[in-house]
Amino acid sequence: MSVEPDVLDEVTPDLIRRIEDALAEDRAGEVRRLLGDLSAPGQASVLEQLSDPERDKLVGVLGRDLDPEALIELNDEVLESVLGQLNSKDIAAAAHELESDDAASILEDLSDKELREVLAELPANERADIEHALAYPEGSAGRMMQRSLVRVPDGWAIGQVIDYCREATDLPDDVYDIFVVDLEGRLRGSVPLGRMLRTKRPVPILDIVDPDIPSVPTTADQAEVAHVFRDFNLVSCPVVDAEGRLQGVIMVDDVVDVIDEEAEEDLLKMGGVGVDDMHADAVRTARLRAVWLTVNLATAVLASLVIGQFEHSIEKLVVLAVLMPIVASMGGNAGTQTVTVAVRALAMGELTAANALRFVAKETVVGGLNGMLFALVMGAAVVAWYGDWQLGAVIAAAMICNLVAAALAGTLIPLGLQKFGVDPAVSSTVFLTTVTDVIGFVAFLGLATLFLL
Amino acid sequence: MSVEPDVLDEVTPDLIRRIEDALAEDRAGEVRRLLGDLSAPGQASVLEQLSDPERDKLVGVLGRDLDPEALIELNDEVLESVLGQLNSKDIAAAAHELESDDAASILEDLSDKELREVLAELPANERADIEHALAYPEGSAGRMMQRSLVRVPDGWAIGQVIDYCREATDLPDDVYDIFVVDLEGRLRGSVPLGRMLRTKRPVPILDIVDPDIPSVPTTADQAEVAHVFRDFNLVSCPVVDAEGRLQGVIMVDDVVDVIDEEAEEDLLKMGGVGVDDMHADAVRTARLRAVWLTVNLATAVLASLVIGQFEHSIEKLVVLAVLMPIVASMGGNAGTQTVTVAVRALAMGELTAANALRFVAKETVVGGLNGMLFALVMGAAVVAWYGDWQLGAVIAAAMICNLVAAALAGTLIPLGLQKFGVDPAVSSTVFLTTVTDVIGFVAFLGLATLFLL
Repeated sequence: MSVEPDVLDEVTPDLIRRIEDALAEDRAGEVRRLLGDLSAPGQASVLEQLSDPERDKLVGVLGRDLDPEALIELNDEVLESVLGQLNSKDIAAAAHELESDDAASILEDLSDKELREVLAELPANERADIEHALAYPEGSAGRMMQRSLVRVPDGWAIGQVIDYCREATDLPDDVYDIFVVDLEGRLRGSVPLGRMLRTKRPVPILDIVDPDIPSVPTTADQAEVAHVFRDFNLVSCPVVDAEGRLQGVIMVDDVVDVIDEEAEEDLLKMGGVGVDDMHADAVRTARLRAVWLTVNLATAVLASLVIGQFEHSIEKLVVLAVLMPIVASMGGNAGTQTVTVAVRALAMGELTAANALRFVAKETVVGGLNGMLFALVMGAAVVAWYGDWQLGAVIAAAMICNLVAAALAGTLIPLGLQKFGVDPAVSSTVFLTTVTDVIGFVAFLGLATLFLL
Repeated sequence: MSVEPDVLDEVTPDLIRRIEDALAEDRAGEVRRLLGDLSAPGQASVLEQLSDPERDKLVGVLGRDLDPEALIELNDEVLESVLGQLNSKDIAAAAHELESDDAASILEDLSDKELREVLAELPANERADIEHALAYPEGSAGRMMQRSLVRVPDGWAIGQVIDYCREATDLPDDVYDIFVVDLEGRLRGSVPLGRMLRTKRPVPILDIVDPDIPSVPTTADQAEVAHVFRDFNLVSCPVVDAEGRLQGVIMVDDVVDVIDEEAEEDLLKMGGVGVDDMHADAVRTARLRAVWLTVNLATAVLASLVIGQFEHSIEKLVVLAVLMPIVASMGGNAGTQTVTVAVRALAMGELTAANALRFVAKETVVGGLNGMLFALVMGAAVVAWYGDWQLGAVIAAAMICNLVAAALAGTLIPLGLQKFGVDPAVSSTVFLTTVTDVIGFVAFLGLATLFLL
């Protein structure tokens, strides 16, 4: 009962400091005691908060005292560095404690040689389960599923099932559903444990089975799996092969991790960052981010070329240079709002072919409305400031143009990318700002050249 | 077994078109048949994809045939419009079918008068459960929990518990854990159903109880609840009052919704959009977004004032106007990368007081590295383009300044906002672009004024 609502309360800055001090002064006993008091996620949190050398030292001190469950919670970069400090016997000991799907997720990034060494330390049946999981591609339902589950033939009565459960010693604690299969091993449905407990012994299990439960194929992508759990409010979901034969079960806690990952990916991609950034070292981080910044540089240079076309206008009327970033910036921000809504709605399946047209139309109206609002505001401000109503009219017209263009680009770019199978989260914003910069500068400087000079 | 991996496969654009046609031609029977074949999330997806008038018509046709479970899946804006089409008897009938926590989540946005009318239609015990839930603040553990659970005294043996479960008729199907309480109703721990099934009847329940399971107080925030589920891989979590007495249980499917909501909020806030945007009408959407655009306008005007200080320099050397947006834009983008990582890491509890300094230092190094890289690239490009090595040196120096400033602002702003209790997702980017615009223009135009004129 003593667990705090937030696991992070357990890992206070003060505790981190005490661990760091104990590590610095090589007080191994104290380190082990401080870590031993923590839950697995608490240990993971400590590992993620320490610096690289401190973490290496800590793993060296803890060795097998490290909770194997903590490994599952680690960020990929941190996991890699922790595994690098453990020998294959220690890693195998940890894998032995875990479900096959969790063990596979820890071992999947090892080199072939390391993986072989670790697997050689494991009992044959565990090795087979892990190899089976690793045979499915990363991010597939086959990789996510665990193979230990309760499977009973469709001819049994409740009494037989209960007796079977009571006698089987290797069943996991986290059994929530009994799966019923036919003679060929094809899934016929499931029975929640609670319902079985409330049913009389002679009743055939088929009488209380849910035949219409959702299942996913081994080949399903993890994002699809998350959709099924989300939409059907599932706790567990059976996984079947192409012939409908039961292969394993995915539990909701693994799906929560997937949902977190996907959300993180979308957020980071929209911000122009790759995954794992927080724990990568500075040089690697700089290199990863430089890719995106290079793309952005190309956009910025393109915008700059556009401005270059109007050098003479700016020479004659330098106030244009002062005001032009406002139009471009408002377009970029309004467009980002639209892109963000579109990307999220596409990811959640709320934006589809059926309502795409309505969405584009609505966003265009929104762009027009806000275009008029800010045209009025900026137009008035410029007239008041410079006493030049023509300049005010030009910035107002450019603002409307750019906010409508931002709405069209902000909807059509992600929809188009999605249609061509490109992830809209990654590339939408760069295309968008290209459009809003170019249109913003062309509209403002172009109209100014036409009407003011 | 027939359910597709992705529920959206069930709701095809073609199906939407057929439903729209049937609605347009008032073929109520066909509408009911088309919708009747769908799962609850499928119905929700249809409701979200139709236009407002179509949706109103559909709800009118379906009435009580609408699956109550579909209501839970609806976006808030859409739910409001659906409830607006139903009378209080229909809403009460739907609430009657749902768990008290789900019923409360549907009714929470009704006006007091509507709520009273709906509650009056419900049996006294259900009314009490819903009122009990609504008494807790929105987004709290108390509001999220359901009150129906299996609770047994700590003096019982397994046999008594099994008999109790078999005889109780009102237990929900989704029971996964038995909760054990003492005479005062204080939670003593839980027993997974699977473990109980495998234990002999005379064994005291206290012998197999997990005493150290996490619990959350009724006052916990939903984000904290999600943290506990995530960190401990839970399927259900008991909720206790200040005295440790068991009040209810939160199931993982509700937590999945919370995780989705929080991720969506963070993403949308970073993009400068409020929640519910997709389904709000154009005028309301425009108004909501205008707030953020106004803040952005202020930033842009500030940047423009900075440029205005250098009018004379630009007049003499118009190429400055051509090149200046490049420096500002690169700073803005590099800073956005940093802010995105910081906001996510803060939300996930990976960035704390313990490692904040290391994070700032690392990001500054990253900013410096990429600053030097792009200084070199742009410096060389400008020399090649304009044949002016001094201009090249100025843009290179400004680039380094601005990317280091972006790194410092991108880390210190979200950390500072978090420290003062302001949500860093909402306000970080606007402060950031203010910094990168101002520093970008000042550094480039300032250095140019000093060295080139």
